[in-house]
Amino acid sequence: MKELNLQNIRQQLDVMDAQLTELFEKRMELCREVAEYKIHTGKPVYDSTREKQKLEAVTALAHSDFTRKGTYELFSQIMTISRRLQYGLLAAHGQAMDMGFTMVEDLKRENVRIAYQGVEGSYGHGAALQYFGREADVYHVKTMEDAMVEVEEGRADYCILPIENSSAGAVSDNYDLLVKHDVYIVAETELPVSHALLGLPEASLEDIRTVYSHPQALMQSSRYLNSHRDWKQISTVNTAVAAKKVAEEKNISQAAVASPAAGELYGLKALETSINHNKNNVTRFIILSRIPVYKKGSSKVSICFEGAHRSGSLYNMLGNLIYNDINMLMIESRPIPGRSWEYRFFVDAQGSLSDAAIQNALKGISEEAVSLRILGNY
Amino acid sequence: MKELNLQNIRQQLDVMDAQLTELFEKRMELCREVAEYKIHTGKPVYDSTREKQKLEAVTALAHSDFTRKGTYELFSQIMTISRRLQYGLLAAHGQAMDMGFTMVEDLKRENVRIAYQGVEGSYGHGAALQYFGREADVYHVKTMEDAMVEVEEGRADYCILPIENSSAGAVSDNYDLLVKHDVYIVAETELPVSHALLGLPEASLEDIRTVYSHPQALMQSSRYLNSHRDWKQISTVNTAVAAKKVAEEKNISQAAVASPAAGELYGLKALETSINHNKNNVTRFIILSRIPVYKKGSSKVSICFEGAHRSGSLYNMLGNLIYNDINMLMIESRPIPGRSWEYRFFVDAQGSLSDAAIQNALKGISEEAVSLRILGNY
Repeated sequence: MKELNLQNIRQQLDVMDAQLTELFEKRMELCREVAEYKIHTGKPVYDSTREKQKLEAVTALAHSDFTRKGTYELFSQIMTISRRLQYGLLAAHGQAMDMGFTMVEDLKRENVRIAYQGVEGSYGHGAALQYFGREADVYHVKTMEDAMVEVEEGRADYCILPIENSSAGAVSDNYDLLVKHDVYIVAETELPVSHALLGLPEASLEDIRTVYSHPQALMQSSRYLNSHRDWKQISTVNTAVAAKKVAEEKNISQAAVASPAAGELYGLKALETSINHNKNNVTRFIILSRIPVYKKGSSKVSICFEGAHRSGSLYNMLGNLIYNDINMLMIESRPIPGRSWEYRFFVDAQGSLSDAAIQNALKGISEEAVSLRILGNY
Repeated sequence: MKELNLQNIRQQLDVMDAQLTELFEKRMELCREVAEYKIHTGKPVYDSTREKQKLEAVTALAHSDFTRKGTYELFSQIMTISRRLQYGLLAAHGQAMDMGFTMVEDLKRENVRIAYQGVEGSYGHGAALQYFGREADVYHVKTMEDAMVEVEEGRADYCILPIENSSAGAVSDNYDLLVKHDVYIVAETELPVSHALLGLPEASLEDIRTVYSHPQALMQSSRYLNSHRDWKQISTVNTAVAAKKVAEEKNISQAAVASPAAGELYGLKALETSINHNKNNVTRFIILSRIPVYKKGSSKVSICFEGAHRSGSLYNMLGNLIYNDINMLMIESRPIPGRSWEYRFFVDAQGSLSDAAIQNALKGISEEAVSLRILGNY
């Protein structure tokens, strides 16, 4: 075959592609008419039986295994785009899908109580003051789960929890808790993290034998800490708890890894500052409410879903996001407790619950997943 | 609009869809001709400039924002299918893409040395014997990274490392290490995990004050351990190290969480058995080699990629898998050390490096990602 022939084939491809585009546009025009019919009669956009029949009909037209599979994929894509058009029109007619969330102009911030986990001086405390202001009515509880229960049972309006660290990754346990409790993410805030090694005022580095801190803080400072091979590292539930312990036990050989703020609060001396090896260390906190609301202009949707336990399930779930041209910001898979090698997926996607593409994707996922939960839009 | 009209529209849609299918098949026929030309001239299948021009040309034909976007998505899908066809033909002509891996009939198992992390009686030891047999030449090293270095530097033929637990999730640190070292996953094995609380032969439950174990084992047994609020939990690098420590220190108040096998080895008594709350607790171990080979019939490909730090990047990366109809078994995102909110993605996908769809997807990802590494096919 000559270069000339390739030219010729490419010209034929161009003609064909123009025809494909024209047909696609005409098809979308017809879909618009179907949508208008559905809007007037209140019929649902997603008709899985009809979509399945359509896929069977078109694949039956193809002549090889390869094009049958290709046709199937092509029409899956076309029907997703069609559905997105229809959801968009429904939204324009004020018939947006009910996601169970209400849009608000702003979050309630007056006369609110905020629970955080840990003790005074913890990073959670710092994040609460950063987001709600120095004068906010904040109080602390013992565990992350306790903080959620405070919100769930109405004693707090909000709670604030760490969900991800820029160097250590997801705070996995909190992902599991989000599924367990009826709370919704309504906002987030990022807190820069800088760990200090805190000892008693009279201590010096040579005195230290034991270091207390939260496992994540120990991990984030592991290069520094492991250079002192003789130091014993002991986990505490919180960095500030470690600082408090060192202050109270008055043992010169003990130190804590915590924030300089915690050091000041408990009267400890910084034996070293900024001992975390990643200097751009930032923790992202989420703010939870028991009321499913989202602020106007919110741009991140967090969802959690369980795929059916069969081949192709994750492919199908994520396909709903990809085919709807939705940008995923983060994805986490977590094993489902008590079931081997079955996962729950946590996805952060760009968009708002009022977007047709998001509605379309969520509708698609909810049809195919064992379960789907919208964790929040913020 | 009447029901009759909907019928009419649907008939029009059916006609249109038949035309679309016909055009699609014709287009694939032309693509086959292009592929044959490329096979004879040695030209690459993926021509990003031409694909970009094509997308610009077809979207320019569309008449609304909505159909422009739809056309873009439709042709992205069509071009992916076209490319897959061409890679398939190349493979059929013995011109498969060079992935740097060699297919082998079986792994070398005679006269091999295997490194595992921990001490005798650890789960890693158990997994090594399970995979390579009771008579295998296994030895232990101190850290997971040491085990990889043994392989990298040729002192061991293989090493075996835990990568995921059915109840606690990924062993994240090992994902990071996989990127750092020149080793390849060549096999995997699943080991059932059942933790016992091990004490000195003369100890009883009431004596226990301190419990030692690996953080994952502590986490997996947290319900049982937390019901004894006065027990102090201390992390060790390995469950068997904890057992050894308890045996050596001969302090009646100390216990370890480890396997019954470790208890036998170190002469400890099981004060409780099966204390992990998830009774289907299984750990998946991977076997690493410094030679990039894959066994014939391998069905799982593990890859790692870094997306470009821009909007839509994860969407584009995963799109390569979705558009190629590849089933993802697992996905993990890990922050890239030193860079805030930038991630590395670890994906396990179903398939073999000799599949056209896998080659197409990997080629696509490597074109778009900052980096792509094939961790193994097994």
